[in-house]
Amino acid sequence: MVDTSDEPVVRVAVAGASGYAGGEVLRLLLGHPRYRAGRLEIGALTAGSNAGSRLGELQPHLLPLADRVLAPSTAEELAGHDVVFLGLPHGQSAALANALPESTVIIDCGADFRLRDAAAWTKYYGTEHAGSWPYGLPELPGGRDALRGARRIAVPGCYPTVASLALAPAVAAGIVEPTVNVVAVSGTSGAGRKLDVGLLGSEVMGSVRAYGIAGAHRHTPEIAQNLGAVAGTEVKVSFTPVLAPMPRGILATCTAPVRVDADQARAVYEKAYADEPFVHLLPEGVLPQTGSVLGSNAVTLQVAVDADAGLLVVIGAIDNLTKGTAGAAVQSMNLAVGFDEAEGLSTVGVAP
Amino acid sequence: MVDTSDEPVVRVAVAGASGYAGGEVLRLLLGHPRYRAGRLEIGALTAGSNAGSRLGELQPHLLPLADRVLAPSTAEELAGHDVVFLGLPHGQSAALANALPESTVIIDCGADFRLRDAAAWTKYYGTEHAGSWPYGLPELPGGRDALRGARRIAVPGCYPTVASLALAPAVAAGIVEPTVNVVAVSGTSGAGRKLDVGLLGSEVMGSVRAYGIAGAHRHTPEIAQNLGAVAGTEVKVSFTPVLAPMPRGILATCTAPVRVDADQARAVYEKAYADEPFVHLLPEGVLPQTGSVLGSNAVTLQVAVDADAGLLVVIGAIDNLTKGTAGAAVQSMNLAVGFDEAEGLSTVGVAP
Amino acid sequence: MVDTSDEPVVRVAVAGASGYAGGEVLRLLLGHPRYRAGRLEIGALTAGSNAGSRLGELQPHLLPLADRVLAPSTAEELAGHDVVFLGLPHGQSAALANALPESTVIIDCGADFRLRDAAAWTKYYGTEHAGSWPYGLPELPGGRDALRGARRIAVPGCYPTVASLALAPAVAAGIVEPTVNVVAVSGTSGAGRKLDVGLLGSEVMGSVRAYGIAGAHRHTPEIAQNLGAVAGTEVKVSFTPVLAPMPRGILATCTAPVRVDADQARAVYEKAYADEPFVHLLPEGVLPQTGSVLGSNAVTLQVAVDADAGLLVVIGAIDNLTKGTAGAAVQSMNLAVGFDEAEGLSTVGVAP
Amino acid sequence: MVDTSDEPVVRVAVAGASGYAGGEVLRLLLGHPRYRAGRLEIGALTAGSNAGSRLGELQPHLLPLADRVLAPSTAEELAGHDVVFLGLPHGQSAALANALPESTVIIDCGADFRLRDAAAWTKYYGTEHAGSWPYGLPELPGGRDALRGARRIAVPGCYPTVASLALAPAVAAGIVEPTVNVVAVSGTSGAGRKLDVGLLGSEVMGSVRAYGIAGAHRHTPEIAQNLGAVAGTEVKVSFTPVLAPMPRGILATCTAPVRVDADQARAVYEKAYADEPFVHLLPEGVLPQTGSVLGSNAVTLQVAVDADAGLLVVIGAIDNLTKGTAGAAVQSMNLAVGFDEAEGLSTVGVAP
Repeated sequence: MVDTSDEPVVRVAVAGASGYAGGEVLRLLLGHPRYRAGRLEIGALTAGSNAGSRLGELQPHLLPLADRVLAPSTAEELAGHDVVFLGLPHGQSAALANALPESTVIIDCGADFRLRDAAAWTKYYGTEHAGSWPYGLPELPGGRDALRGARRIAVPGCYPTVASLALAPAVAAGIVEPTVNVVAVSGTSGAGRKLDVGLLGSEVMGSVRAYGIAGAHRHTPEIAQNLGAVAGTEVKVSFTPVLAPMPRGILATCTAPVRVDADQARAVYEKAYADEPFVHLLPEGVLPQTGSVLGSNAVTLQVAVDADAGLLVVIGAIDNLTKGTAGAAVQSMNLAVGFDEAEGLSTVGVAP
Repeated sequence: MVDTSDEPVVRVAVAGASGYAGGEVLRLLLGHPRYRAGRLEIGALTAGSNAGSRLGELQPHLLPLADRVLAPSTAEELAGHDVVFLGLPHGQSAALANALPESTVIIDCGADFRLRDAAAWTKYYGTEHAGSWPYGLPELPGGRDALRGARRIAVPGCYPTVASLALAPAVAAGIVEPTVNVVAVSGTSGAGRKLDVGLLGSEVMGSVRAYGIAGAHRHTPEIAQNLGAVAGTEVKVSFTPVLAPMPRGILATCTAPVRVDADQARAVYEKAYADEPFVHLLPEGVLPQTGSVLGSNAVTLQVAVDADAGLLVVIGAIDNLTKGTAGAAVQSMNLAVGFDEAEGLSTVGVAP
Repeated sequence: MVDTSDEPVVRVAVAGASGYAGGEVLRLLLGHPRYRAGRLEIGALTAGSNAGSRLGELQPHLLPLADRVLAPSTAEELAGHDVVFLGLPHGQSAALANALPESTVIIDCGADFRLRDAAAWTKYYGTEHAGSWPYGLPELPGGRDALRGARRIAVPGCYPTVASLALAPAVAAGIVEPTVNVVAVSGTSGAGRKLDVGLLGSEVMGSVRAYGIAGAHRHTPEIAQNLGAVAGTEVKVSFTPVLAPMPRGILATCTAPVRVDADQARAVYEKAYADEPFVHLLPEGVLPQTGSVLGSNAVTLQVAVDADAGLLVVIGAIDNLTKGTAGAAVQSMNLAVGFDEAEGLSTVGVAP
Repeated sequence: MVDTSDEPVVRVAVAGASGYAGGEVLRLLLGHPRYRAGRLEIGALTAGSNAGSRLGELQPHLLPLADRVLAPSTAEELAGHDVVFLGLPHGQSAALANALPESTVIIDCGADFRLRDAAAWTKYYGTEHAGSWPYGLPELPGGRDALRGARRIAVPGCYPTVASLALAPAVAAGIVEPTVNVVAVSGTSGAGRKLDVGLLGSEVMGSVRAYGIAGAHRHTPEIAQNLGAVAGTEVKVSFTPVLAPMPRGILATCTAPVRVDADQARAVYEKAYADEPFVHLLPEGVLPQTGSVLGSNAVTLQVAVDADAGLLVVIGAIDNLTKGTAGAAVQSMNLAVGFDEAEGLSTVGVAP
């Protein structure tokens, strides 16, 4: 444990504190050693339509902040902080970011600055491209360096996080054809705290459904971007998201035509993630499960080769709200601000 | 509604009445119009280690049969019935079937007689091949004819049911390459009523996990057999089963390299299932969900083409215990005995 | 099975067909033997804001009616039917009922006509009392007679159904003090298909919460009314509803100071429900569970005496949408129209 | 944050590390600031039938300890530690405790030493009474003092924890009659990692059931003991446990005949828990939910008076594995060893 008592206090704000991403950022900050040591302060908490409410009404699990009242998500409220986390609806980040000083570390949990290809952005989001920011996935090749000292960070989408980490080593090493298939089963919090009949408990419990199939989901180009960058060539991505009856977690089944045998494939993954604190290749034969990473920042992976079908099969599990969103945001903050990358993040899940 | 009052009474037994398959067969039989008209009698109910128990202790949802006492699963107890359903552990069906008259309709919900390839059987089940029986999936080409009047029927596995119905039209029409990928998310009842730590409620709720990946699951050769027969050539199958926190239901995401466009693909499916009472191609853009087929014998499908990835994407949903097991068993009985195929089976699910 | 071929066709409409109550009425009607025999027709299906939609979009489990288009819930659309089921928001039934002929059987799944005490109505619902109709709980003393041939029927609330049936025999026989305590755990469909953050799947899964405590829930006076009528004296009711992470089912724990021993208490219940087709006193020591009555019209009860605490303890389970709403509605229809009371209703649950 | 670098290292063992209680103790220890500062060491991890297994196979959520191999639960393995947590089947603690030095802090998560009344023990557990140890519920009057420096501690049962904290202030202040009714809904992990058909996921999901009713549950005398001690007179307890489809959490509905009005009742609770770090009386009208305390050591309470029924109604929520077991164990360790009571424990839940 580092003695941080001489370090400057870092002041943090969260815009969108009433949503799931904002709530999870706050959960992690409350457990951050710097917060407990008084070296990290939780400043403004803001919201859209929920401004004026007590946080305790909206995030009753954050008891230490229950009496905080949400301010409106304006640049005025967010000014004067060293770090600002944004958990806003798509399209709202650019205006807010432009109104804040360049020196402020802005960490956007939304999609606005994830895609580098303006055409892909417009095709999938229907609006003008706002630009792209350093991408908050340190475990991708070169990812960590781009985040150290960064002042603007785009947190990856939840599906791209696990799909990219599951496939990047294989694609980078060229042990698969650049044609990948991802079927990822997610808990419902990935859809956000959105009033939608299809997200009611009565509808989701006891039922599984696919959505956004055949390339329609907005995370498709983001996966392709990440893998393409790693491969140095275009990677074709088939992506099918599936909604399962649980609040959190993503389990991704990723396949691609394989050029090596199982041992060679495993060696590639062992090497790729040997030093990563949050990406764990499980022992042979042990399969990831989302329940084991609940609330943790860990990514668990298993790699196999289906010799009959000629495919690499990689299974990956994350908590979509932690490593898939808020954990990546805090990990990125740590890198941007100069903290130890893993501070306040855990590989211990809450189970059963 | 047919007047059945002049028809002979059909006497039915269920071996393995304390398991999930046996329980579901009984649930369907209790709702069968012939049972309610007194033309179908529920005779012997047998079990293994549960013999001697009241059915009400083990299947409390079957109130009308609560006071029945389970007999041992012996040929003596099962003799004297017109139809015998078997819901036994793998490997126990052959001996019992051999001890019953050839005229008895035996409908095996287990795996013993599903595979025609003895080598595949031995590779996946580790024992000697017992043979193969007519396969209880009437919706496959030629499937219905094989079942009319049959005296021995092998009920398909739950995953092969939905995967085969989802892919057979495409494979038969040659609109895809014979290389298919199936990722299927199942409720826990598919594992049977088995004492296994990994199936405890505390372990499965809030968690999703894959198992039997990379060709290890026993349903892989069964899917390959069904699709190969339809294609007239070998079909390579990659199959990944995933366990989700719900008791029932399977949602399968099936992909294959496609040779046609979306309209052509849709036309193939419309034609294939136009007259099928239980297989429903949903309107364009509407996606299957397992909750909608809970307790029903329906299969719901959606077909799309991912042009960027060059894949046909077919999503299928069934209830693994109904259409995936006991519904197929009753449907097969109806065909074998000469009832209307759909009697006692419904396309109405229990939702929400 | 009765031969109904000479009987007149009964024409049924459902107002509020896009809600959970309306959907469950339709599910039961589709399985009603009269429907399958062509003697019961499903006529107008109407809705409020969902008018104009295909039923298949809103109730995808009702495949045989998927292509029906919802009409607006007006008297014009509902005219010309023998039976009209109402599944409307509170306060909308009276106007619609007044605009339909007196000869039409109107079965209201809402609360408007349940309470006989105008003051209680106004205290709990805040509006003027619309009156009271025969109460659709045939198993209460005198309940059945009031429903035979009735033309207006108020379907009981879901909690009052199970609480009243669990306590009525004891209260009627005077074996308890008229001071009862009901803690009832319900699935989420009891709240209706309502867009409410607290009903989102992400919020309800993995969590249990009480609501409407200390007499605040509107079902409190309805339970008191039912038990008071049976007792012939005022019965004080403490009622706590609890929301559990499942779509359907209510489990009620009902206690009252007891004046007899366990055998005497059991005898009272055995006698009270000996001839009831849907109310089942389970064998001694066997406890009700909601999963066993899923989709069924059964009420399962267990009775015990806690000698140390001096309390009668009655546990009751129902499916809130079936016996708690739509099953009671169909049971009431059967009585009103002169069908056999149990037609189209089952005591077989869908489990596991 | 206290600088602990000069303090002696505390060495901790966990017996029963493959169970839910042991796993949760380890989860909390891994997050304990003393562990992260290197001042608390996790020593022997032992198990019964699972001895010899890697912890990663059994507790895959504890990634940092995945490679630890479980030793057998013998005194030899547990010797040489400052603190030993026991998560053993009932009846096994005494022998092990007797074989360890008196100076070792032994914290028993099992029931063996909870009851002070030998007759009550024998009535409920059927064996000879092993004695009683200081009771690990610091928030009860006098509870904290008994734990400071203690060398043997009995961790309370999960239901008694929430029921006692919910009712103790009222009983202590004499604002209710000493006749209380507790209906508590629990997640399935409270039953332990036990192979039992009734605990299979297929059985528990979608279903709620009561068990151990009418005074049969072993936690009944423990609740009576706690409240009786606080009241200074016998308190009659009616207790009904209910199993709900979620892994964790208990929501207790507690009632008793009340002698004061709502404001007076609230004042009693405000005063009782004003300085408690883990017991939170929620703002008026806000109701506890188990999801908000998932993984946290918090107890959330709400108090109301049902004037019509003449009852105090207290709703309480805890996580049965954290505050209900392992959190209380760690809290007790902190007091016994002289750490700050709240170290390593949080009031922040993991939600949604």
